[in-house]
Amino acid sequence: MTDTPYQQLEQRFKRLSALAEAEAVLHWDLAAVMPRGGAQARAEQLAELKAVRHAMLTAPETGELLASADAVDGLDAWQRANVREMRRRWIKATALTEDLVVALSKAESACETVWRTARPAGDFALIRPYLEELLARVREAGQAKAEKQGLGLYDALLDDYEPDGRSADVDREFAALEAFLPGFLPRVLERQAAAGAPLTPDGPFPRAKQEALAVRLMKLLGFDFDHGRLDVSLHPFCGGTPDDVRITTRYDEDDFTSGLMAVLHETGHALYERALPKAWRGQPVGDSLGMSVHESQSLLIEMQVCRSRRFLTFAAPLMRETFGAGGPAWQPDNLYRLYTRVRPDFIRVDADEVTYPAHVILRYRLEKAMVEGDMKVADLPAAWNEGMQRLLGLTPPSDREGCLQDIHWYDGAWGYFPTYTLGAMTAAQLFDAARRADPAIEDGIGTGRFKPLTDWLGAHVHAKGSLMPARELLIEASGRPLDPQLFIRHLTARYLP
Amino acid sequence: MTDTPYQQLEQRFKRLSALAEAEAVLHWDLAAVMPRGGAQARAEQLAELKAVRHAMLTAPETGELLASADAVDGLDAWQRANVREMRRRWIKATALTEDLVVALSKAESACETVWRTARPAGDFALIRPYLEELLARVREAGQAKAEKQGLGLYDALLDDYEPDGRSADVDREFAALEAFLPGFLPRVLERQAAAGAPLTPDGPFPRAKQEALAVRLMKLLGFDFDHGRLDVSLHPFCGGTPDDVRITTRYDEDDFTSGLMAVLHETGHALYERALPKAWRGQPVGDSLGMSVHESQSLLIEMQVCRSRRFLTFAAPLMRETFGAGGPAWQPDNLYRLYTRVRPDFIRVDADEVTYPAHVILRYRLEKAMVEGDMKVADLPAAWNEGMQRLLGLTPPSDREGCLQDIHWYDGAWGYFPTYTLGAMTAAQLFDAARRADPAIEDGIGTGRFKPLTDWLGAHVHAKGSLMPARELLIEASGRPLDPQLFIRHLTARYLP
Repeated sequence: MTDTPYQQLEQRFKRLSALAEAEAVLHWDLAAVMPRGGAQARAEQLAELKAVRHAMLTAPETGELLASADAVDGLDAWQRANVREMRRRWIKATALTEDLVVALSKAESACETVWRTARPAGDFALIRPYLEELLARVREAGQAKAEKQGLGLYDALLDDYEPDGRSADVDREFAALEAFLPGFLPRVLERQAAAGAPLTPDGPFPRAKQEALAVRLMKLLGFDFDHGRLDVSLHPFCGGTPDDVRITTRYDEDDFTSGLMAVLHETGHALYERALPKAWRGQPVGDSLGMSVHESQSLLIEMQVCRSRRFLTFAAPLMRETFGAGGPAWQPDNLYRLYTRVRPDFIRVDADEVTYPAHVILRYRLEKAMVEGDMKVADLPAAWNEGMQRLLGLTPPSDREGCLQDIHWYDGAWGYFPTYTLGAMTAAQLFDAARRADPAIEDGIGTGRFKPLTDWLGAHVHAKGSLMPARELLIEASGRPLDPQLFIRHLTARYLP
Repeated sequence: MTDTPYQQLEQRFKRLSALAEAEAVLHWDLAAVMPRGGAQARAEQLAELKAVRHAMLTAPETGELLASADAVDGLDAWQRANVREMRRRWIKATALTEDLVVALSKAESACETVWRTARPAGDFALIRPYLEELLARVREAGQAKAEKQGLGLYDALLDDYEPDGRSADVDREFAALEAFLPGFLPRVLERQAAAGAPLTPDGPFPRAKQEALAVRLMKLLGFDFDHGRLDVSLHPFCGGTPDDVRITTRYDEDDFTSGLMAVLHETGHALYERALPKAWRGQPVGDSLGMSVHESQSLLIEMQVCRSRRFLTFAAPLMRETFGAGGPAWQPDNLYRLYTRVRPDFIRVDADEVTYPAHVILRYRLEKAMVEGDMKVADLPAAWNEGMQRLLGLTPPSDREGCLQDIHWYDGAWGYFPTYTLGAMTAAQLFDAARRADPAIEDGIGTGRFKPLTDWLGAHVHAKGSLMPARELLIEASGRPLDPQLFIRHLTARYLP
C-alpha cells in the first residue's frame, strides 16, 4: 500500500528533525567542549547541515505533499496541527528568494562582526550603516513572509519566535505593565533600602561542590541524567534534544548564587524539552511551542519556585551542608532577600524580576517602530536613553551600556525581545493556575517534592507540544488568555507584601 | 565562468566531508559523553546523516562529473589522485543494489545483536545461522564490488580498509612471520622466565594524576590541545576531525600502565589526522591512507617509541614525580620489562607485540577461506582452535575465548583483520627509515624531544594524505616495499638482544 501524502510528510519531517537534532548536538559541543581550533570546521559542518535541511524542506515535493494533505479528510486534531506547523516551516523557508537569503545572511554577518568592535568601544556611529543595511534586509524578508502568511510586517517577524503571536496583544499586555511598574518600583526600592542590604555568604565555593549542589537540586526537580547532562559554557543554555537534554552553567568560585540559579532556570527549559509528547517525537507538532512558553517554563522554575521563600527555606540547609558553612548569611530569610534584591541597572541580562520588563518593553517599542518605519536607526541612541530615563530613571553612560548591549538586533533577531516578558507573565499565570489546581504543589516546594508541580506542567503544557497556539494553551491551562494582572499580583505579593 | 567538472567534484566532496565530520563528532559524543538514554535518537541522527551522504554520493551528477573529469587534461598529480579516490568511493557506493544494501544492513544488525548474547555464553551454535546469512551477503556485496573494481573477491573486501591492498602480498608477508614466530616465541618466553617477573608499581593511581601524566606526554609528542581533546570512553579510540582530534582512554586506578599506553597509541593516530595536508582538507586525497598506515602511526608511537628502553628511561622520572612514588618498581629497567612482557593468551586485544601477529594471521587465513568458499562457517570453531594450538600452543577453553571474541565478523567487517599486522610491520619499517635518516630522532626519544620524529613522519607520511597507495608511500619513505624482515629484526633486537 502506498503511503498517504500525510504519511510521506511525516517521514520527510522526521528526517528533517534528525538532521536538526544533529545540529543541536554540534552546537552544544561547540559551546561546551570544542577546542577553539575546531571553530572553522564546525562552522562548515553546521552550514552544510543547514543547507541540506533547507534543500529538503523547500524541495518541490514538500509543497506538493502539503497541497495534497489538505485535500484529505480523516486527519485527527494532532495530525491537522502537525500539517499546520509543517506548512508554517515550509512557508517561512520558501518565502524568501535565494538572493534575499544570501543578502540577509551577509548583512547579518557583517553587522554582527562590526558589533563585536562597536560595542566595547561604545561606537554607534561605526555600526550605524551596517545596522541600517541589516534592518532594510530584515524588513524585506519580513514583508515577504508577511505576504505569504497574511500577517502584518512586525507580526511576521514575531511569528518566527512566537508562533501566532500578535503585536496588538503584546501592546495591550505591555501597556498594563508600563502603567504599573513606574509607580511600583520606587516603593520596592524604598522598602528594600529600609530593610538594609542582605548579607553575602563568604566563599570560596569550589566548583565541584557547586556542581554537586546543582545536580542534587536538578534531580529533585526531576531532571533525568539518563537523558541529559550538566556542563559548563561561557553563557548558560539548554540545548541537545528531547531525549538527551544538555544544560550548561558557569561557576564563580566567589559567588555560588548566580551559577546555581542559572542551573535551575535551564532545568525549567530542560523539563519542558524532555516531557514533550513522545508519540510526536520528530514531528513539528511534537516540538516546543515557541519562545514565550519556553521562557515561561524556565522562569516558572527559577522565579516562581526557586526564588520563593518556601524553596529557599528548603534549600538553605542543603546549601550549608554542601559548603560546610553556617551563620546569619545562610539563614533562609537572608537568602531570600539576596535572591529577590531589586537594583535598577543599565544591563538587561543582569536585571532582576521587577526591572526586567522595563528593559524588554523599551526594546519592543523601539524595534517595532524601526521595523514599521516610524523611527530611523539614526535616532536609536537618543530614543533608547530617553526610554531608559522614563522607565528606570537611568541614563546609560555610553551606548555600550545602552543600545549596543545586546546582540539580538545586530545579529538579525528582530521580533525576539517581547518573548522574555511574555514568558515571565505566562509563568506567573501558569504557576497561579497550578497552585490553585493542586495544593500539594505549594507544599512540595517546601519539602523538595516537585512531582505534583511537574506533573501539572507535564499535563497542561509539556505534553501539548505545538498542538495549539500559546494563547489557546494558556486558556486551556488557566481558564483565560494572558492576563498581566497575574504577574502584577505576583510582583506585589513578593516585593510589597 | 562556469566551474569545471573537476571543480564541481571538489565542491561536492567538500560537502560530503562536512557531513562525514558531523557524523564523526556525533560518534565521539556517543562514546565519550552521551547519556545512555540518548542512544535511539542518536542512531536515527547517524542513520539520517549516512543516508544523506549516500544520496549525495550516488546522485547521477556524481557519476557524470567523474566521467567528464576523466576527459579533462591539465590536472596535476594531487588532483588526479583526488579523482581516483572520489571514483573509489563512488564505485563502492554504487556497486550494490538498494536491496543488497538493505539485506546486508539487516544481516549485520541481526548477527551483531545475537553475538552480544552468544559471546558471553560461548554459544557458537546460536550464532551460526546468523553468521552464515551475514557471510552470504558479505560475499554477494564483495562480488559486486569486485566486478566493478576488477578485483578478486577477498581483495574487494580488503580494499574497503586497505585501499589497493592485495591478498597475494599479504600472503607472502604473513608467511614470513609465520615461519619466524613459532621458533622465536619459545626462546623469548624462556629468556623472560629466566629473568624473573618484573615488579608491579603499587597504586592506587588517582585518575586526575594519570590524566595529568598523559596530557604531559601528549604535549611532548606534539598533540595540540587547541585542536583536540583527551576524554574517557569504554574502549580507547581516536575520533573527531583533523582540526579537532578527539582521543579517549580509560583509567584503572590500580594500574596506570595500560591506560597510559592506550593514550600514547591513540596519540599516534591523532598526530597523523592532525598533520594531513591542509590544502586538501575535505577532499578524498587529503584523507588518511587506509588502516595499515593509520595503525602504523599508532604502533610506531606506542611500540617502536614508547615501549622502548630509551623512552621509558626518559619517562620514568615523570611517572615517579606524577604519582609521588619511588623504589625498584619505578626503575627504567623494570618499567621496560613490564612494558615488554610476552605472555601468550587467547585474547587478541590483550596480546603483546610478539604474539599479536599470530592472532591476526589466524583470523586472516580463516576469513579468507570462508570468503573464498574454501571453508564453511560450521567448521570455524574447530579450525580456530587448531590454529591457536599450532600458532601459540593454546586451546581456548570455549568459543567465548575463541572464535566469538571479536566483533568484526559478526558486524560485517571482513577484510579488516590483516591491517593490524600490516600496520605493525609498516611501523617497524618506517621507524627504521626515520632513525637512519636523522640521528636526532633516536636521541630525542631519550630527552623528550619528539619533533625530529614527527617532522619526519609529517613529511614522509602525514602530509601525503592519500596521494599514493600504501605500498608506494612505503617505497618513497623507506626505499622498498613492505619487508617483514624489518619487523622481525625489531622483535629480535628487543626480545632476544
